[in-house]
Amino acid sequence: MTIPGPEALKEMDYAQLEELCGRIRSFLVESVTKTGGHLSSNLGAVELTVALERTFDPFTDRIVFDVGHQSYVHKLLTGRQAGFETLRSLGGMSGFPKPSESDADAFIAGHASNSISVALGMARARTLTGGDYSVVCLTGDGALTGGLAFEALNDAGQSGERLVVVLNDNGMSIKKNVGAVARMLAAQRVKPAYYKFKKGYRKVMFAVPGGKALYRFNHNVKEALKHAILHNSTFEELGFQYIGPANGHDLKQLCYLLEAAKNAPGPVLVHVVTKKGKGYAPAESEPDKYHGVSAAGAKSCGESFSSVFGRKLTELARENRRICAITAAMEQGTGLDGFAAEFPDRFFDVGIAEGHAVSMAAGMAKQGLVPVFAVYSSFLQRSFDMLIHDVAILGLHVVFAVDRAGLVGEDGETHHGAFDVGFLRQVPGMTVWSPSSAAELRDMLDVVQVDDLGRRVHIAQRQ
Amino acid sequence: MTIPGPEALKEMDYAQLEELCGRIRSFLVESVTKTGGHLSSNLGAVELTVALERTFDPFTDRIVFDVGHQSYVHKLLTGRQAGFETLRSLGGMSGFPKPSESDADAFIAGHASNSISVALGMARARTLTGGDYSVVCLTGDGALTGGLAFEALNDAGQSGERLVVVLNDNGMSIKKNVGAVARMLAAQRVKPAYYKFKKGYRKVMFAVPGGKALYRFNHNVKEALKHAILHNSTFEELGFQYIGPANGHDLKQLCYLLEAAKNAPGPVLVHVVTKKGKGYAPAESEPDKYHGVSAAGAKSCGESFSSVFGRKLTELARENRRICAITAAMEQGTGLDGFAAEFPDRFFDVGIAEGHAVSMAAGMAKQGLVPVFAVYSSFLQRSFDMLIHDVAILGLHVVFAVDRAGLVGEDGETHHGAFDVGFLRQVPGMTVWSPSSAAELRDMLDVVQVDDLGRRVHIAQRQ
Repeated sequence: MTIPGPEALKEMDYAQLEELCGRIRSFLVESVTKTGGHLSSNLGAVELTVALERTFDPFTDRIVFDVGHQSYVHKLLTGRQAGFETLRSLGGMSGFPKPSESDADAFIAGHASNSISVALGMARARTLTGGDYSVVCLTGDGALTGGLAFEALNDAGQSGERLVVVLNDNGMSIKKNVGAVARMLAAQRVKPAYYKFKKGYRKVMFAVPGGKALYRFNHNVKEALKHAILHNSTFEELGFQYIGPANGHDLKQLCYLLEAAKNAPGPVLVHVVTKKGKGYAPAESEPDKYHGVSAAGAKSCGESFSSVFGRKLTELARENRRICAITAAMEQGTGLDGFAAEFPDRFFDVGIAEGHAVSMAAGMAKQGLVPVFAVYSSFLQRSFDMLIHDVAILGLHVVFAVDRAGLVGEDGETHHGAFDVGFLRQVPGMTVWSPSSAAELRDMLDVVQVDDLGRRVHIAQRQ
Repeated sequence: MTIPGPEALKEMDYAQLEELCGRIRSFLVESVTKTGGHLSSNLGAVELTVALERTFDPFTDRIVFDVGHQSYVHKLLTGRQAGFETLRSLGGMSGFPKPSESDADAFIAGHASNSISVALGMARARTLTGGDYSVVCLTGDGALTGGLAFEALNDAGQSGERLVVVLNDNGMSIKKNVGAVARMLAAQRVKPAYYKFKKGYRKVMFAVPGGKALYRFNHNVKEALKHAILHNSTFEELGFQYIGPANGHDLKQLCYLLEAAKNAPGPVLVHVVTKKGKGYAPAESEPDKYHGVSAAGAKSCGESFSSVFGRKLTELARENRRICAITAAMEQGTGLDGFAAEFPDRFFDVGIAEGHAVSMAAGMAKQGLVPVFAVYSSFLQRSFDMLIHDVAILGLHVVFAVDRAGLVGEDGETHHGAFDVGFLRQVPGMTVWSPSSAAELRDMLDVVQVDDLGRRVHIAQRQ
C-alpha cells in the first residue's frame, strides 16, 4: 500500500481523498503499534494534514509543526513511508519534524508552544526578502496553554503579517486539557461561527465533531451587526481573523477554509475541532493511553524512577500535609497519577507552563507549603529565570523532581536532559542530588520534605 | 512632611486622602529627582496604591507587586519614608519590593510578569492552610505582554481561588506598549463597563483618565441581557470576574471597586486606567524620559556600550539588508532607538517576551535573515530553552547582543547579569565574546554580521 506525494493530492476528488485517509489510518495503526510512537494525535489529524498538504506546498510553503509528534501523516505524504520501519530508533526516522531529514520539514519541533513564534519569524523574513510563499503553523490546544504561544499571538496579531495559524483543538494535551483557555475553546466549539470573506458575511457553520453540518447563506446588514456584537472571540481581540470552529474530519470543509485562510491578507487563525484517536476504536475511547504506544514486545525493566518517586511522595504527603505536587501537563509521565487521585486538592496541573509552575511554587513556599515540581529535565529549561528570580533570591524551599535527566532515547535531541546539572549548579543555594537507585531516591525524598533546610533541592532521576 | 501609615488611611475621608496624594506626589518628585529612580510609574500609581493600602492590610494581607519599580508609594506608606534618602544605593533602600526590608513586602520583584503566578501560589497556600487573608497583585499592562502572566491567568481563571489581580493600565511599558493585547486594552478603556455584584447589574461607569464620570442605576432584565451580549472581554473568557475600566485617579471609585473585588468569591481582575507621570507636568508629557531618572549631578562617563552597539549596528544595516534588530520592550535601554528610527521595517519590539523574541529570531534566521536580539543579560535567562531548542539544535545564526552583563549597580540583585557566561557556554555551538572596549565591540559586530560562520555569537557588553 503506497501513499502518494502531495502533488497527487491536488488531482484527487473528495471521495478519493477520503479513501486515502482511510488507508493512511490503517497504515499508521499497523506500523506504529509495531514500532511504538505517538498514535492518537496522528489519527486525529489525518484529514487536517491531508487538507493542509493539498492547500499548501510542503516543499515551497513553510508548514511549522508545534511539538511535532503529530507530524506522521506529513512524513507519510512527503516521501518517508519507508522510514516508518525505523521510527524513533537509533539512526532511523525521527518522531518529530527535522529539516535534515526532508526539505518538507520547515523547522524542528519537540517542546510545545514555539510554532507561532517560529512561523511569525519566517513570515517576516518572507516579507522582508520579497519571498512568495505561505507560512502556516499547526498548533494544538495543549500548546496554547504555554505562555510562549501567547507572546507570539500578541506580536503576530498586531504585525499584519500574512500568517495562518491552524489550531488543532482536540481538547487534550496528553490527558484532558486544563485551564481557562481550554474551557473557553470548549465553549467556542458549540457556538455558531460566522465567516467574513471578501464580500461580507456569507457563512454560518456549526461544527460538531463527527457531524458535517455546513450551512451557507448570504447575510444581510442585520446579520453583520449580530456578528459584530456576538462574535467577539479572544483571537479576534488579539488581532487575528478567526475562522471556525471547523469540523476537522470533513475534508471539503477543511480545504475550503484553508484556501480562504491562505488568501487572507493578514494573520488568520483557523480553529479546527478534531477527535484524538479518530478511526481506531481503542484510541478513541482511551486517547491518553494511546498518546504514545510502546513498541510491540518492548519489555519494561522493573519499576521506573518516576513510579518510585510518585509512590514515595504520596506516602510522605499522608504524613506531611504541607506537601503539594505540581506538574506541567505531565501527570502520568512524572508518576504523579497516584498522588493526584489521593490528594486532588494538593495536586496542581498548570498546563504546559513550566515558567508559571515555578513562580507559583515560589508563592506557595513563601506562604508555608512544601511544593514539589515534577518535571522533565529538558522542559525545566523553560523555568531557568524563575528558578533564579523567584526561588533562589529569596532562598525558598522548592523541590524540583527532575525526571528524564540524561539521554532520553526515542524522543531524541529535543528531549535530552543534557543541561540540567550545568544550569542548576550555578544557581546560588541550589543543591543537586542524583540518586543512583530507587532506594536512594526514596531516602532523598525523606530528607527534602523537611523545608527548614533553607535550600532548594533538585533530584535528577537517571533513566 | 510625614506620610502616615496604613492604619491612618482607614480613618481619613476622601478629601483628606486626596490631600495626602498631593503630598505624596510632592515628596516623590522632590526626593526621586535628587536620588534618581523610577518616577513616572510611581506618580501614576499614587491614588491606586493609597486605595490598595486602605482596602487591604499590607502587613497581614499579601500585596504582590509586578516588576516592583512602582512600589515607592507602598514603601512610603509602610514606614520607609526615611529610606528614600538612600534609595538604590549600596546598603540603602532597594528600588524594588524586598521581604527582608519589610514584612509589608510580600515578595521580591524585578523581572516582569511573575506576580499573578506568585499571588496564585500564595492564594492556594492560604486556602490549603486555612489562612484568613486576601491576596492581591498589582500588575501593569506592559507585564501582560509576557507569556508568564498569561500562563498564570489561564491557571488562576480556572482555579476558583479568591484572588484579586489589579491591572494598572497606563498604556505603556517603558515606552508605548506594543502588541495586540495593548490594542485590546485601549479599546476596552473607552467602552462602558457593567459591573455585576451580588444583586445583579447595578453600575455603569465610563472611565476616562482625568475625568470622573460615575453613573449608577439599577439595571433591568434588558440591561442584563445587553451585558451578557456585549461584555465579553478576554478576561471573562479566561474565567475572571472583570471589573472596569476604572478611573485610576478617582479615589472614591477605586476604594469602592477594590472593596467589591476583595469580597468576591473567586478570581477578579480590576482594570484601572492611570496616567503615567500624573501630576508632574514634565513626566506627564514625556513619561518614557521620566520612567527612570538619574541622580542629580550624576555624570556619564563617555559613550555607553549600548550606544556604541546601536550606532554600529545601524551602520552595518545600511550595507547588509538582511540584518534585523529585535528587542523585548527595551528599545532605548539597548541603544536601538537610532536603528528603529532608520529601519522601522527591520526593527521588532515584541513586548516583554524574551522567549518569543528568540524563537521568532530562529524562524527569521532559518529563512535567511541575520537577526540580532539585543537584551539585558538577566532577562535573557527567560530564553534559555528557546536558545537551545530553537537556535542551537539547528545551528542557526542568531546574534545575541547581551547588555548589562555583570553587576548592574542600582537595580540590584534581580537585575545582575551574573549567569550568562555559565548558561551560554554550555550550549553547543555557541560562541561567547566579551569586548573590553568600544573598539572591540565594533570589530566583533563587523564579524558576526556575516552569517555563514555557522555559529551563534553572544556579545556580552560589560558595563
